[in-house]
Amino acid sequence: MKISEIGGEFSLIDRVTRGKTAGKQVIKGIGDDCAVLEYTGDTYQLITTDMMVEGDHFMLDWYSPFQIGMKLMEVNVSDIVSMGGTPAHAFISMCLPDTVTVEFMDDFYKGLYSSAETHGVHLLGGDTTHGRNYVFNLTLLGRVPKELLRLRSGAENGDLICVTGSLGGSTAGLKLLQRGITGYTADHLEPKSRTAVEAAKIALFAHAMIDVSDGLASEVTHICNESDCGACMDYNTIPLSAHTRETAQLLGEDPHEFALYGGEDFELVFTLQEGDLPGLKKKFSDFTVVGRILERESGVYLLKDGQKLPLKSGYNHFK
Amino acid sequence: MKISEIGGEFSLIDRVTRGKTAGKQVIKGIGDDCAVLEYTGDTYQLITTDMMVEGDHFMLDWYSPFQIGMKLMEVNVSDIVSMGGTPAHAFISMCLPDTVTVEFMDDFYKGLYSSAETHGVHLLGGDTTHGRNYVFNLTLLGRVPKELLRLRSGAENGDLICVTGSLGGSTAGLKLLQRGITGYTADHLEPKSRTAVEAAKIALFAHAMIDVSDGLASEVTHICNESDCGACMDYNTIPLSAHTRETAQLLGEDPHEFALYGGEDFELVFTLQEGDLPGLKKKFSDFTVVGRILERESGVYLLKDGQKLPLKSGYNHFK
Repeated sequence: MKISEIGGEFSLIDRVTRGKTAGKQVIKGIGDDCAVLEYTGDTYQLITTDMMVEGDHFMLDWYSPFQIGMKLMEVNVSDIVSMGGTPAHAFISMCLPDTVTVEFMDDFYKGLYSSAETHGVHLLGGDTTHGRNYVFNLTLLGRVPKELLRLRSGAENGDLICVTGSLGGSTAGLKLLQRGITGYTADHLEPKSRTAVEAAKIALFAHAMIDVSDGLASEVTHICNESDCGACMDYNTIPLSAHTRETAQLLGEDPHEFALYGGEDFELVFTLQEGDLPGLKKKFSDFTVVGRILERESGVYLLKDGQKLPLKSGYNHFK
Repeated sequence: MKISEIGGEFSLIDRVTRGKTAGKQVIKGIGDDCAVLEYTGDTYQLITTDMMVEGDHFMLDWYSPFQIGMKLMEVNVSDIVSMGGTPAHAFISMCLPDTVTVEFMDDFYKGLYSSAETHGVHLLGGDTTHGRNYVFNLTLLGRVPKELLRLRSGAENGDLICVTGSLGGSTAGLKLLQRGITGYTADHLEPKSRTAVEAAKIALFAHAMIDVSDGLASEVTHICNESDCGACMDYNTIPLSAHTRETAQLLGEDPHEFALYGGEDFELVFTLQEGDLPGLKKKFSDFTVVGRILERESGVYLLKDGQKLPLKSGYNHFK
């Protein structure tokens, strides 16, 4: 039976982990951006792991080794900060083909360390192996003060749904690269995680938080599933950069679709009580209100030109 | 420039990590079986990561998915226990090809969980991706009481060098599989890590400890490099199982070579003061004395039929 027949990778994870216990010390296991473990008296430890595969996550024609290294670190940092945490220690595993050169690896490590230094991450170990094509895996450990931990499950009925920065830029860049059209591709090749300092400011006010890995639609659906609630998203308020709008116009596509279903923007989606909006704005203002949390019965939908459209899910490797 | 031209994977790691700091909290970074971090007042946290690649670490013709899952867990557990620690929490990343079936993944997870349950490990998360062939990466977290932490660097002049169980079985099995000869292959397909309980008994007395990933010669060389000492290994005392001797005889090869240069036996190599031998034997006796730690000036050599032979290094993915 193919994995697509049982519903893809998320169903596979549900299937194999059913009935397994997580052990004491574990505050949150499978099902959030990071696992959360008891750590010191007033902090939790956060752990995340992300794999990047040649041909699936990156093409060597498009990415410099520097960009691959940088992106590998940024996507993992984004998982840590999306829980309100600060990244600290990284472990890298690499599967390298016979054709790998010292120059490639030097450039890759420069990118990895460039991002590590930005976010205060120390690389502490790893594993170097050999195979048919490049596969990189990074495991990142971080920590979060207990009172700042934000899960997908914290959203409350009536909360505003907000997103930092702008969305869809990664998909816009990817589409240009796929079609061989010159244009603005940096959002795809060099995505940047929000910093721990920014995320901690948001976490002070947020109820639930997640980063945009698989698209806004997918992330809001995760929040609703874990928080047992519904949501209404406002199509017209989805923040899009000028670059993203220009690329979409050039390609004759809708940039909102890039934001909703594209992914890899690594912005933060969070919910907060409406009354906390002014408080957050004083500390951090680079965000947009894009919807509202509703009761579960209301479902999860997108409001466009007065019409209620169901939210499709985001990217799935096995669908 | 090819990585082999600078001396392989270990030289690559030296090259890129030179001049990088490890940060506070870090007791030991790159260069041991695990990284060691400050944890609670009287324990350290241990972190290791190991990658297994189709075609390099396992052939689908030889391994069942169950065996791949089990081996992935055992090799990581072995890294934790070789520092005196107890494994606790695991994170798995998988790159799966289009052809993967639900049955394959069910069997793989059965193997992974079977070993996890043996060693008290809880799987807390991971990443599922897609690529041309199977790549599995496991990151394993554990802990160790501070007084039981054993590094490669702890060996002292005059120490005995010991090894648990018997060696060479994995290589013997691999050679049978490579040549399509029926025989005893379980040591290669289903290697078992020593348990945390066994390792803790040894750690009570040991000065330095490491597991056999790349062959006895390589592990003793690591201990000598990190402890700034030399060593004399006694060829005739290297423990070999009856299966390993039989296979070597069948193939017309020397089973001692399997033990010294083959690897993947996941037994423990440790050094201790001669006076502590009776004390350890009362608690744990499945080990053999195979050599002695000497001053650095003596070098690292193998004593065979009265002759001093230099120890070659073990397996290197890029040599």
